Amino acid sequence: MCDACGCGDVRIVPVELHERILADNDRTAAHNRAHLREHGVIGINLMGSPGAGKTALLEATAKAFGGRDRLAAITGDLETERDAERVRAAGIRAAAITTGSACHLDAEMVHHVLHGDIAHDADYLFIENVGNLVCPAIYDLGQEANVVALSVTEGEDKPLKYPTMFRNADLVLLTKIDLLPALPDYDREAVESALASVMPRPRVIAVSARSGEGIAEWVNWMERLRSPQQPQTNGVAMTT
Amino acid sequence: MCDACGCGDVRIVPVELHERILADNDRTAAHNRAHLREHGVIGINLMGSPGAGKTALLEATAKAFGGRDRLAAITGDLETERDAERVRAAGIRAAAITTGSACHLDAEMVHHVLHGDIAHDADYLFIENVGNLVCPAIYDLGQEANVVALSVTEGEDKPLKYPTMFRNADLVLLTKIDLLPALPDYDREAVESALASVMPRPRVIAVSARSGEGIAEWVNWMERLRSPQQPQTNGVAMTT
Repeated sequence: MCDACGCGDVRIVPVELHERILADNDRTAAHNRAHLREHGVIGINLMGSPGAGKTALLEATAKAFGGRDRLAAITGDLETERDAERVRAAGIRAAAITTGSACHLDAEMVHHVLHGDIAHDADYLFIENVGNLVCPAIYDLGQEANVVALSVTEGEDKPLKYPTMFRNADLVLLTKIDLLPALPDYDREAVESALASVMPRPRVIAVSARSGEGIAEWVNWMERLRSPQQPQTNGVAMTT
Repeated sequence: MCDACGCGDVRIVPVELHERILADNDRTAAHNRAHLREHGVIGINLMGSPGAGKTALLEATAKAFGGRDRLAAITGDLETERDAERVRAAGIRAAAITTGSACHLDAEMVHHVLHGDIAHDADYLFIENVGNLVCPAIYDLGQEANVVALSVTEGEDKPLKYPTMFRNADLVLLTKIDLLPALPDYDREAVESALASVMPRPRVIAVSARSGEGIAEWVNWMERLRSPQQPQTNGVAMTT
């Protein structure tokens, strides 16, 4: 929780300390990435606001895979192992990281978990980050892809207000679309326009963990991460 | 955005630096508080996840006050002045703080704005923090009360997973209750039980900025901040 660190504030945390921290993190992330690649594991860093539907997405994903692929997850929260318990119940092998006070996962936390057996024979490793649209964006964990869950109930302007998170995203999952009938003022074009203005290669898939809508497309996107010779949709076009 | 600071991670940011940062912040917050009290301004630190409905709440609050009291706001975002523009349009005098990379407001940022004319003849000053359920919780800004907006679409377990934010809250506004009909599985008792387990004095008001439900009770709560001799509801009971 930025426990007395003045996070991001270069007025009070020395720049050289900032740089050392990120450099150390990047080194460990590179080590994690090499380890995962060596074992044929696709790491996916799943980020988003608290309540954006990250855990529900993993539950729906497990259901969609139906045992075809071996899924593992690391779930990050300040306290409780609730998310790990939920995804385990869905059939995903999961380890919890309770950060206590830290507002994001870092590569060293993930490295520690990887020393256990969690991802060793997995095809995919989901790293469900702490719910936070700010801090996790700049900490590389060793993943192959950054995926951001953005729920329709969060409104249309979050990409403009929290641009770093979306700038670093390979894919945005527009979640909870089953609630759209209850949100008559929601402007889908506005959120897509906002994403297009900050994402270098805008990719959006609209999903509902509840109804299952869009989940097949998301699974398809994941599968193409393993076979990158297949084009990931048509160029820079939105895939909503 | 925890820009290379390793926020909260005492493994890498020295403890003495952590302590100095918070101590400096507390000193400036005390100064802000004295300044606001001297001018008869009630400061309210409004926190919550991105998309929890903080800005919409301020819009509805301005409408409910209907010009009776003088309202001012400081809105914090990484980028854009959209929130300030929205609350200005609702009749609240507002100044924006764009933090660039910082994931929370701190007392010095607020102090800087207070040197302008924003709160000088206001009755209430809302400080709409950066959307984040983690980092803003421990930075005192000089407010009289911490209010956390928690939307019903975020689920029931956030108080357990982000306890520091709720532990430090004087009031939780359960927002977007107009969406409850679209959330048949939402368990209101579960969220109240979770809040009761972390808040020292659990107080919850359920509101909808869209329908106006609960807004009068929230305004009443605010007014009692100015007349503390009147009891704030009945003891530790929930006020949902």
